Amino acid sequence: MTAFTTPTLPAPWRQRLGAYMDSTAVTRSVMLLILINAAILGLETSSTLMATWGGVLTNLDRLILGLFILELSLRFIARGWALLRDPWAVFDCLVIGIALVPASGPFAVLRALRVLRVLRLISINPNMRRVVQALLSSLPGMGSIAMLLGLVFYVAAVMATQLFGEAFPEWFGSLGASLYTLFQVMTLESWSMGIVRPVMEQFPLAWLYFLPFILIATFMMLNLFIAVIVNAMQSTHEQEAREAAPTPNEQRILDELKALRSELAALRERP
Amino acid sequence: MTAFTTPTLPAPWRQRLGAYMDSTAVTRSVMLLILINAAILGLETSSTLMATWGGVLTNLDRLILGLFILELSLRFIARGWALLRDPWAVFDCLVIGIALVPASGPFAVLRALRVLRVLRLISINPNMRRVVQALLSSLPGMGSIAMLLGLVFYVAAVMATQLFGEAFPEWFGSLGASLYTLFQVMTLESWSMGIVRPVMEQFPLAWLYFLPFILIATFMMLNLFIAVIVNAMQSTHEQEAREAAPTPNEQRILDELKALRSELAALRERP
Amino acid sequence: MTAFTTPTLPAPWRQRLGAYMDSTAVTRSVMLLILINAAILGLETSSTLMATWGGVLTNLDRLILGLFILELSLRFIARGWALLRDPWAVFDCLVIGIALVPASGPFAVLRALRVLRVLRLISINPNMRRVVQALLSSLPGMGSIAMLLGLVFYVAAVMATQLFGEAFPEWFGSLGASLYTLFQVMTLESWSMGIVRPVMEQFPLAWLYFLPFILIATFMMLNLFIAVIVNAMQSTHEQEAREAAPTPNEQRILDELKALRSELAALRERP
Amino acid sequence: MTAFTTPTLPAPWRQRLGAYMDSTAVTRSVMLLILINAAILGLETSSTLMATWGGVLTNLDRLILGLFILELSLRFIARGWALLRDPWAVFDCLVIGIALVPASGPFAVLRALRVLRVLRLISINPNMRRVVQALLSSLPGMGSIAMLLGLVFYVAAVMATQLFGEAFPEWFGSLGASLYTLFQVMTLESWSMGIVRPVMEQFPLAWLYFLPFILIATFMMLNLFIAVIVNAMQSTHEQEAREAAPTPNEQRILDELKALRSELAALRERP
Repeated sequence: MTAFTTPTLPAPWRQRLGAYMDSTAVTRSVMLLILINAAILGLETSSTLMATWGGVLTNLDRLILGLFILELSLRFIARGWALLRDPWAVFDCLVIGIALVPASGPFAVLRALRVLRVLRLISINPNMRRVVQALLSSLPGMGSIAMLLGLVFYVAAVMATQLFGEAFPEWFGSLGASLYTLFQVMTLESWSMGIVRPVMEQFPLAWLYFLPFILIATFMMLNLFIAVIVNAMQSTHEQEAREAAPTPNEQRILDELKALRSELAALRERP
Repeated sequence: MTAFTTPTLPAPWRQRLGAYMDSTAVTRSVMLLILINAAILGLETSSTLMATWGGVLTNLDRLILGLFILELSLRFIARGWALLRDPWAVFDCLVIGIALVPASGPFAVLRALRVLRVLRLISINPNMRRVVQALLSSLPGMGSIAMLLGLVFYVAAVMATQLFGEAFPEWFGSLGASLYTLFQVMTLESWSMGIVRPVMEQFPLAWLYFLPFILIATFMMLNLFIAVIVNAMQSTHEQEAREAAPTPNEQRILDELKALRSELAALRERP
Repeated sequence: MTAFTTPTLPAPWRQRLGAYMDSTAVTRSVMLLILINAAILGLETSSTLMATWGGVLTNLDRLILGLFILELSLRFIARGWALLRDPWAVFDCLVIGIALVPASGPFAVLRALRVLRVLRLISINPNMRRVVQALLSSLPGMGSIAMLLGLVFYVAAVMATQLFGEAFPEWFGSLGASLYTLFQVMTLESWSMGIVRPVMEQFPLAWLYFLPFILIATFMMLNLFIAVIVNAMQSTHEQEAREAAPTPNEQRILDELKALRSELAALRERP
Repeated sequence: MTAFTTPTLPAPWRQRLGAYMDSTAVTRSVMLLILINAAILGLETSSTLMATWGGVLTNLDRLILGLFILELSLRFIARGWALLRDPWAVFDCLVIGIALVPASGPFAVLRALRVLRVLRLISINPNMRRVVQALLSSLPGMGSIAMLLGLVFYVAAVMATQLFGEAFPEWFGSLGASLYTLFQVMTLESWSMGIVRPVMEQFPLAWLYFLPFILIATFMMLNLFIAVIVNAMQSTHEQEAREAAPTPNEQRILDELKALRSELAALRERP
């Protein structure tokens, strides 16, 4: 099984290869390649540029893709299957893998996904990685309210489909259409002039459905935001308390205690 | 009167029945039933599915409704009228009760309310229940500002009806229409292009009414949000202070005090 | 001059009158009158109701107005000109005074302002008054950013009028029109589809003006909100610190100190 | 080189000139001039006013511009090239310099930039300057999330151009157009009725692209806001802790310590 889990390179060579792949020089070169690739992918969106420089750009893109595959292979050789325990490495493999699927026929949309490769800037840059992890760390705190919001959306969508589905098939014709429309209403985009006023022309009491929905959904969104804010503050606050120098008042207490102690020492020294 | 307040089952049996109804097995089964029912109610919104599977779905729905009624009856037998002191049980009775009203003629809209049954997921799941109670607990803190906002809305709606009611009956024709339009304006949806610019074409000074309204209403909404945020932070903060280990500075003070004490003890031991 | 500043009633009578006017019975009666008046003013917006009950409603409205004038006169007799030092009393006089101006010809709009009388609910109810004062107290903290925002708006409006005034007279034809349109853009209402995209069709680089304006204006609004939030938190925090029982850690320190003290006392008692 | 870096005035005279230029009298006069200039630039936007008073206004504007140039020259004489180390002085030079470029032909747009001169109110008023610096100081804390947001925007824009560019050239025809449209979508302006619903008519699965984009972009914006809020709170909190009088509980601890100390002193005094 070891033959399967680790490639054939001897262990010390693998360690040196791993250290080399993590060195600043390699990391910086890969970041540079990603930036160049980002520029190329951006230039490829211009049809006038593609008409004259299309061949060059496509070949450069392929070359960089080849270098990325080489880089990932070397990392894999160095670390073996353990590499895939790192979610960022899995992410790297996925965004590179997309480019290898032939983007034709039903997979034509995959061509557009090739640009996700640029997001490797995050996985290769420790600072960016930390920011993303901080953002992700606030998600679990939103879990229970998000579930509740999902439940409210589901119930509201079934009701809307039954109430308004026949009269407004474009907006409420199916469960999916209703969910989309309710999401739009929750973002308050054209909720009244675009959706509710036309609906009220046919169902004058429709506001009895929509106004409570807006109030409940936006109130939940507000609480979702607050959960994130409170979380962020709390972790900042804790970190502060852990690292902080004494406040002036705590310092006064400490000074007072020091004085007491020296006085006690003097008392003790007395015969 | 006891004959009326408690069903005829002997007390020890009732206790055992109550414990059984609250057991994990029953709770989980009911949750599963609710989820299945939610799926069925969702599938019933699709007319193509209803054409082929309509009978099966409707019968399954009725079967589950029967099980819910059975469950509530058993709970009622176990706890008697005391059950209705629990607001969640009242909620359960209401959302089940809706399904028993014949949804025809003027009550056709009640059919759509049957999906509220899915909200029992909240009442049966202690975690969800806690989240909802946390959300509700932030409402009283909003009370006084909400009342003020209501007063401002009422005054603004009467004014808008008198000022613009004749010229724009669709938006400001009655007190209700004005309240709805002002709510739309407060959410900032199409307030200018949709409402105020057309009004200003006829009343060039209408901005003297609308801009202050927008500023006051959104400022109050902001304060409503802040009330919720401050509330959430305060309760988090209090809980933290109650549970927290000493901060490093508090720990230093405590250590200093301990040292003082042991020094005093040494002093006392001296002859 | 005293003849002018104080009415002719003898001082002890005036004191008793003042106490009577501030009594719960009078305050509650006035609140009831305001609520009835609010309802009447609301009913007066319905033209069908006015056709049949118009006379009754108008007369009731006049009667209540008369009672309000009586109430204010009695207050004035009790307190003299000192009454006008209370801003709430000035507010009461203003909203009652509006009703006395003949609302005809150019002043027809004043009829709509009569409903402001309902806002007396705030001035008569101490709780409401406190909420409004809390809201107003957060305004000074917003002063300097609001001034800055005003300056940015003025500069942006002059620029917009010069750049787009000729091509889009309806939106940017004058300084006032530009200010209004920029306010709309700041609230993000139809800023792109309604305003900026049409402008960009004629001036393709208009986004160089609008995007920075949106970023700067919304960033300032965000900071305005933050000023209010930080203010609210700070005052809550201070009040908390002033009233709070010791935290568990502070309690531990205090207990430790108490133990130290009793130990010292024991030491002192020793011969 | 000193001949180049400092004008020919002797040093003591330069110091006295510098002190004079910073005196309240000069500062206030310049502020008054700026306000008058702001008013003139505002009046110049009115074509009816310009028809009758155009000459006077233009001449007054030129006169004030001359005074500004004189002021800046005097400042420069007083401080020499060191003046340009102050970013506010550079700002002053730039906004005055704009007026000296002949605003004709391709530079006609510069005429509109002349009003930026009014922003000197910020650079001349220490209070305003402090507010702007406080606003700017919250920008670095937003850096890493802003970079991440920029990366997401770039990737999303390339994808949108490839997916929808051909079908909707006006919105997604080029990288720039896509970036602008995605910014609009992020502000939630007409995102659904204006952009996504039309796109979904041709690409029914387009919501798979837009909904995640909206959720990710608004979540990042929320975190950007939170970064600013947490920053503001933290600095307020720190300042508070530095300046604050002891809380009642800290005071109790300090009092307890003082009592302990006096008791110790009494113990020491004993023979």
